[in-house]
Amino acid sequence: MHKLVLIRHGESTWNLENRFTGWTDVELTPTGISQAMAAGKLLKAEGYDFDVAYTSVLKRAIHTLNYCLEEMDRIWLPVVKDWRLNERHYGGLQGLNKADMAKQYGDEQVLIWRRSYDTPPPALEANDPRGQRQDARYAKLQPEQVPLTECLKDTVARVMPCWNEVLAPAIQSGQRVIISAHGNSIRALVKYLDGISDQDIVGLNIPNGVPLVYELDDNLKPIRHYYLGDAEAVAKAAAAVASQGKA
Amino acid sequence: MHKLVLIRHGESTWNLENRFTGWTDVELTPTGISQAMAAGKLLKAEGYDFDVAYTSVLKRAIHTLNYCLEEMDRIWLPVVKDWRLNERHYGGLQGLNKADMAKQYGDEQVLIWRRSYDTPPPALEANDPRGQRQDARYAKLQPEQVPLTECLKDTVARVMPCWNEVLAPAIQSGQRVIISAHGNSIRALVKYLDGISDQDIVGLNIPNGVPLVYELDDNLKPIRHYYLGDAEAVAKAAAAVASQGKA
Repeated sequence: MHKLVLIRHGESTWNLENRFTGWTDVELTPTGISQAMAAGKLLKAEGYDFDVAYTSVLKRAIHTLNYCLEEMDRIWLPVVKDWRLNERHYGGLQGLNKADMAKQYGDEQVLIWRRSYDTPPPALEANDPRGQRQDARYAKLQPEQVPLTECLKDTVARVMPCWNEVLAPAIQSGQRVIISAHGNSIRALVKYLDGISDQDIVGLNIPNGVPLVYELDDNLKPIRHYYLGDAEAVAKAAAAVASQGKA
Repeated sequence: MHKLVLIRHGESTWNLENRFTGWTDVELTPTGISQAMAAGKLLKAEGYDFDVAYTSVLKRAIHTLNYCLEEMDRIWLPVVKDWRLNERHYGGLQGLNKADMAKQYGDEQVLIWRRSYDTPPPALEANDPRGQRQDARYAKLQPEQVPLTECLKDTVARVMPCWNEVLAPAIQSGQRVIISAHGNSIRALVKYLDGISDQDIVGLNIPNGVPLVYELDDNLKPIRHYYLGDAEAVAKAAAAVASQGKA
């Protein structure tokens, strides 16, 4: 039996400001740092340990991982940063306020942009300063690999090769893996692992900074999954994520 | 022409307490953190950028690198942690005060332990709690790969395979490399690069937290090398390292 730990980054400055973030590289808030440290303390207290860690190339996920590993005295672990674990690209919504958008376009439209499986938000222009085609960290990618917008289906399409080529082989080789990532890259993984339908994934919300444990069999089929920590607090945190896009 | 940047970690708690550290995993001091941040600011101001970073599995070097990369907005860079870049193992001296040892054994003996090329300090017992054979980070190594003491010659013998297998190929492939490491693992690299004799390496001291730039030709032969920053401050810092082992 394998145990895989997923963790969504702690609260970021744009989570706090209720802005669409996507690939914008924003910092953790002090609350987000506390969440990451608490997650590390919890993992250590529950006897978790890891052989390798994976994260995105966005600092809110990297920092969450680092704070977590510091608490576990595991900052020396190998860490692989893979752009395919980045948050869903939010296209033309990046930087805009979720409640403002709901007032302007209606809750319904914002929910579609936020949660529709296959309808992406309006695309950014390739040279938009809010976009990432000029960002040094993606310089080795083909331009078309750097999205101008994404729906969750697009995110799944880039997360799955990372799962198949990198994450699944690491887990199957017996390594204990932690992945520090983002709401939608984790939703992509969870959708695949639990076989959640395109319709049902809309209602799934991942709270910030709470370790999510998947117990997997030898074929990496989930046996069960659970959040670590206080169940009520976890449910409240997930509900808070769900309500962000309301006017 | 390739530019390789070497940086010794910022001041650690045991640098400050004048204790032999070796493979003991001590923290940076606030001064050490400031040195690391200043190094990052300096590298950025001088227009340096990197494609990949290498460090040891000891937190004073990892943290120095991270503070440095944060200042450069490059925390997303790939970082490889290699135990072969660790500090020289100080054997039975680990944890002991350098000046106390000088009072007890004389300046001459301490200078031999600190700087002799081929005389190691007394070895630790394999099960000594000050040793690293029970440390999880070395669990994948053969026990005999985890030293019980080292002279600089021993350190050179483990740093060189890392250079030949990992560092040199990365540089020759055109990647811009920074290495955050330790006084003696950097001395090992510098001894090789500059062809310094076993006798002359005794007098070479690497200051904490100052970027050391090597310009290398296509065969990785040094064209020249220099520290970044204020030359007088660098010389003073190196002299301070040299005088640590006096009574």
